[in-house]
Amino acid sequence: MTTQQPLAVGLIGVGRMGSFHAETLAHRLPGVRLAALADPAPGAARSLGDRLGCATACTDIGELLADPRIDAVVIATPARTHAGLVEAAAGAGKAVYCEKPMAVTLAEADRAIASAAEAGVPLQVGFNRRYDAGFRAAHAKVAAGGIGTPQLLRSLTRDPQLADPARIAPWTIFLETLIHDFDVLRHLNPGAEPVEVFATADALVRPDFKDRGLLDTAVVTVRFDNGALATAEASFQAVYGYDVRAEVFGSAGMLTMGDVRRTHLTAYGPDGVAAESVTYDQHLFHDAYVAELADFADSVRTGRTPSVTGEDARAALSIALAAIRSVTTGGTVRVDELQDR
Amino acid sequence: MTTQQPLAVGLIGVGRMGSFHAETLAHRLPGVRLAALADPAPGAARSLGDRLGCATACTDIGELLADPRIDAVVIATPARTHAGLVEAAAGAGKAVYCEKPMAVTLAEADRAIASAAEAGVPLQVGFNRRYDAGFRAAHAKVAAGGIGTPQLLRSLTRDPQLADPARIAPWTIFLETLIHDFDVLRHLNPGAEPVEVFATADALVRPDFKDRGLLDTAVVTVRFDNGALATAEASFQAVYGYDVRAEVFGSAGMLTMGDVRRTHLTAYGPDGVAAESVTYDQHLFHDAYVAELADFADSVRTGRTPSVTGEDARAALSIALAAIRSVTTGGTVRVDELQDR
Amino acid sequence: MTTQQPLAVGLIGVGRMGSFHAETLAHRLPGVRLAALADPAPGAARSLGDRLGCATACTDIGELLADPRIDAVVIATPARTHAGLVEAAAGAGKAVYCEKPMAVTLAEADRAIASAAEAGVPLQVGFNRRYDAGFRAAHAKVAAGGIGTPQLLRSLTRDPQLADPARIAPWTIFLETLIHDFDVLRHLNPGAEPVEVFATADALVRPDFKDRGLLDTAVVTVRFDNGALATAEASFQAVYGYDVRAEVFGSAGMLTMGDVRRTHLTAYGPDGVAAESVTYDQHLFHDAYVAELADFADSVRTGRTPSVTGEDARAALSIALAAIRSVTTGGTVRVDELQDR
Amino acid sequence: MTTQQPLAVGLIGVGRMGSFHAETLAHRLPGVRLAALADPAPGAARSLGDRLGCATACTDIGELLADPRIDAVVIATPARTHAGLVEAAAGAGKAVYCEKPMAVTLAEADRAIASAAEAGVPLQVGFNRRYDAGFRAAHAKVAAGGIGTPQLLRSLTRDPQLADPARIAPWTIFLETLIHDFDVLRHLNPGAEPVEVFATADALVRPDFKDRGLLDTAVVTVRFDNGALATAEASFQAVYGYDVRAEVFGSAGMLTMGDVRRTHLTAYGPDGVAAESVTYDQHLFHDAYVAELADFADSVRTGRTPSVTGEDARAALSIALAAIRSVTTGGTVRVDELQDR
Repeated sequence: MTTQQPLAVGLIGVGRMGSFHAETLAHRLPGVRLAALADPAPGAARSLGDRLGCATACTDIGELLADPRIDAVVIATPARTHAGLVEAAAGAGKAVYCEKPMAVTLAEADRAIASAAEAGVPLQVGFNRRYDAGFRAAHAKVAAGGIGTPQLLRSLTRDPQLADPARIAPWTIFLETLIHDFDVLRHLNPGAEPVEVFATADALVRPDFKDRGLLDTAVVTVRFDNGALATAEASFQAVYGYDVRAEVFGSAGMLTMGDVRRTHLTAYGPDGVAAESVTYDQHLFHDAYVAELADFADSVRTGRTPSVTGEDARAALSIALAAIRSVTTGGTVRVDELQDR
Repeated sequence: MTTQQPLAVGLIGVGRMGSFHAETLAHRLPGVRLAALADPAPGAARSLGDRLGCATACTDIGELLADPRIDAVVIATPARTHAGLVEAAAGAGKAVYCEKPMAVTLAEADRAIASAAEAGVPLQVGFNRRYDAGFRAAHAKVAAGGIGTPQLLRSLTRDPQLADPARIAPWTIFLETLIHDFDVLRHLNPGAEPVEVFATADALVRPDFKDRGLLDTAVVTVRFDNGALATAEASFQAVYGYDVRAEVFGSAGMLTMGDVRRTHLTAYGPDGVAAESVTYDQHLFHDAYVAELADFADSVRTGRTPSVTGEDARAALSIALAAIRSVTTGGTVRVDELQDR
Repeated sequence: MTTQQPLAVGLIGVGRMGSFHAETLAHRLPGVRLAALADPAPGAARSLGDRLGCATACTDIGELLADPRIDAVVIATPARTHAGLVEAAAGAGKAVYCEKPMAVTLAEADRAIASAAEAGVPLQVGFNRRYDAGFRAAHAKVAAGGIGTPQLLRSLTRDPQLADPARIAPWTIFLETLIHDFDVLRHLNPGAEPVEVFATADALVRPDFKDRGLLDTAVVTVRFDNGALATAEASFQAVYGYDVRAEVFGSAGMLTMGDVRRTHLTAYGPDGVAAESVTYDQHLFHDAYVAELADFADSVRTGRTPSVTGEDARAALSIALAAIRSVTTGGTVRVDELQDR
Repeated sequence: MTTQQPLAVGLIGVGRMGSFHAETLAHRLPGVRLAALADPAPGAARSLGDRLGCATACTDIGELLADPRIDAVVIATPARTHAGLVEAAAGAGKAVYCEKPMAVTLAEADRAIASAAEAGVPLQVGFNRRYDAGFRAAHAKVAAGGIGTPQLLRSLTRDPQLADPARIAPWTIFLETLIHDFDVLRHLNPGAEPVEVFATADALVRPDFKDRGLLDTAVVTVRFDNGALATAEASFQAVYGYDVRAEVFGSAGMLTMGDVRRTHLTAYGPDGVAAESVTYDQHLFHDAYVAELADFADSVRTGRTPSVTGEDARAALSIALAAIRSVTTGGTVRVDELQDR
């Protein structure tokens, strides 16, 4: 591959997130082209390919990985397939961008990381919040010492509505939702690592699904090795919208991030002051989703280390697994004593 | 009067504003006592006196002014009586606090100012916004050079609802409402004076009263002698509340003031983000109304010049009269060519 | 006492908070008079009395309690003396307003509550946030079902600066600071009671005092019997000001409260957008501090139950004691298994 | 042209705005391709073409217009050349997108409009604010009656810094800057048209250039035929950033738009609360600039009337010309009596 040629990227998994990434690869990034689509669901890749003008579409992921014209892949399949696909893609010599969570066990994470290292390919993970303008500026300010030493942190995710609870796995809230917040906490506390985790969770949105193990509401406390105390909080149903916020308080100041308001329009009427809220992650994080793939493409082209690594994915996973164990045992869990379930 | 004795203050006019001031004199100011109430309306002063524990109440204002035990008076009667009462009170040797507008003609204003000067009594005017914490901080910052030279200013007043339009005089919006904004513009552009005024006004809230001369909506442009261009804007009916804001933009920065939100509570629901609004001036300016009387009492006690003078009242009146003439003639009006109508 | 006579209130403890309450009793409340001051520190009560025009001042609290002309007392002494003074005051037949915390052990709290009940006197506790306009509106909205069932709550207190750490007791952050937040969490989750508590705390502001047991930073998780999960968070030093906020998220909406901005003034300059912050509790809660004493006076006059009761104080104390035990043991603590340390 | 083929767009004028539009045409719009670039400056088109992968670049605009492979053109040259280029492009049968102002005299505007009509090609004008999410939502709400009848409007533009004043023409502030605000006022007062204009302007940023006719600060009042009173305000130098805001107040509510804050990050430190501001129009309006070209492409493809027409450009120009005459004469100017200077 020369820099003259556009980077040829294959997209695996054409669900909601995969489709957005496919559009980004097809239209939004100079120097990048959507080279192929793969999804096991019959017709899904083909249909999206038609819409986006991508001629190569298949149901066999292996076929995509075997295509020598493809430089890099974006993995946007269901969470439990991620790590295996990272291994396969790295094994095929492709640069790899993998949606979060990169893995759901530490062993898987270790294998995924090792596979990329052995193949000498870049591996980037989809912690998109790091690419949001506000979160990015916050990280830069913290890293530059702008708030002194972080002491208290908070990150939260509240999804606008709970989809069919029957399709949610018991630990989804930790492995797929709070995994973002765990990464945000690490990112806003640069250089520090989690020591101890306490978590509590419940089925408050859909108590009728509690006996199936569904947890839709959770609060997690994390103690970091620099002393900072952090909380992460999630709910699967916020009637007012998609609510993602964070806060980092330090010895020399505080930063807050996140705003559920959709635009800068404010309306004043007989009932007071009002603004519309964001209800869709692809509105809130549109630019961040594009920026993370642009950054991935840049790391592939330049050969530099990706900005969000497999190690970052593993570290966030560690907190998630510790939280899950804490819910199970009712006590605190030390991250360094963690072993796979 | 010694500093040992509380300052004895008489209140003239027990309407909405007068009643609030009476409560302030009775309860909210250390070192001050409400000594007497006068209002021509039979029983009105007596009734308020009973409620506030003030034994002296009368319908004859002259009786109050003649009372040698009274140190100072607060005038809160209808606007057109203000200047005459200032003269009478000053003539009786009382320190005078007068609600805005202090006068409705320049001749009246001059006589009122002269009467206080001759009597050697303090004369303060009720431009309460100067005492609001936000406006006060803004003035201090501008006066300290914090935004450089003011270049563009804006002040607005929107009342929450139009009372019976049949009771409103044609020029009320300039003489009684925008008079506040004209003072704010001068206060936020310290040291500068208005040169030229252009105004336009209409009956948009109640067009059916336009043929009686009612004007309920107005926009005024003022050019100051330091070059600054200012707008003042008023409406007699804002369905969302009592809206008072200002903005001063200068060569080195900008300040904005005013917030219609009632508290720091924000509500998020299926319709988005919401907050309640202020609908009552005595909520928005409660503290400012108390602070202006406290400041008046202090100037009486210490003998210093009041913070808001008769000259300030006259200067704001000049802008109002120029605006009225501008509406009448359709052209710009130079303030220095202004003569009473 | 008849309603004709002002309520005679004695103030015990003339420190920072006591002095403010004394001013309120002396000047800010119609129908109330500051009848006496007592403080063991020689000259302290006398000096404040001179300033406020209160002739009766003593160093012997018993003398104040024995004065038959006094209807009610406000207790604003150091925390550990509160419960005993409540007992003594109730025993002397006085209506009692006690600053938080009303007690520092459950046994003390029970005795204080019992003493007021036996004496048939009102007992109100100083959880001032309930009287802040924003918190009050939030409680009303939650109580009216405006956000459905509370599911996630947060309350935080960050003091602007850490005074001499040598003067702070080990558990101060829980017993005197977070006690406010524990009450806020209960107040914003009306009808629910805490079940289980997990707390973590550290000396991050002044690590050099950690070996003396000082804790200056804490995070507490509380699970309520309606399933709601809550966090309370405190720091003894926020360089940017006095930061008090809360949030309650429910099945039908969310409310946020608290704003560190001092006024509605916003400044725009070469460095961006700026606002001043509040650095002093008596600025932020001025009106709430007055309102709570007005409400106390009203409950004394009318004989109704106070709005914030000894039972409320005990409930908040329970959470504090559970948090302390959780820090000690490293595990979760059930509130119903709590016994005094 | 079929819908299968991408729309071939030629870009004329590769300055700051033209370069951004060229990038949009090259990379940001599915179904659109940047087919050619033209700019009289030697090498400018070629250099941008190399960067964007556009092979056709020339210095002769006529050459581009003569190219039969080009479906549409985007005109981003200096203002005074716009109308002539619209005529030429329409004459060549191209669909035309023209940056604002489309014309600087009414005669020019009429000819430009007529030329597009005669050629039967779409003509869209670059009032980008209509495509900003907040302004768009505001227009929709007003058009749906959400604030009743508009009564008071405001729109302002403050550029972050004054470039070399020697290069600015005397009426630039009206013809190139406030032209946006005049369009916003019309757009937020749908169906109404301007009746009368009063304007005042000065050289406050660079008084040393006043004798050359430079005006860098202006305030304009516009009365509309539905009675609404509007102000537009501009400054060429706001030290705090690029400030674009608007407000529309009506009989049933008010809307405000615009926020100079760059992101949702807020910083709290010893000096208070702070946020960064936007200093660059291509940050503030990035999405709007893309959306307007997407909308243009859509109107070309579908044959529908563009959303922002030549008539819209002429109407905004009328206000600008009336404002210029008002500054010249010192009086109000009726729009319907306007003739070209």
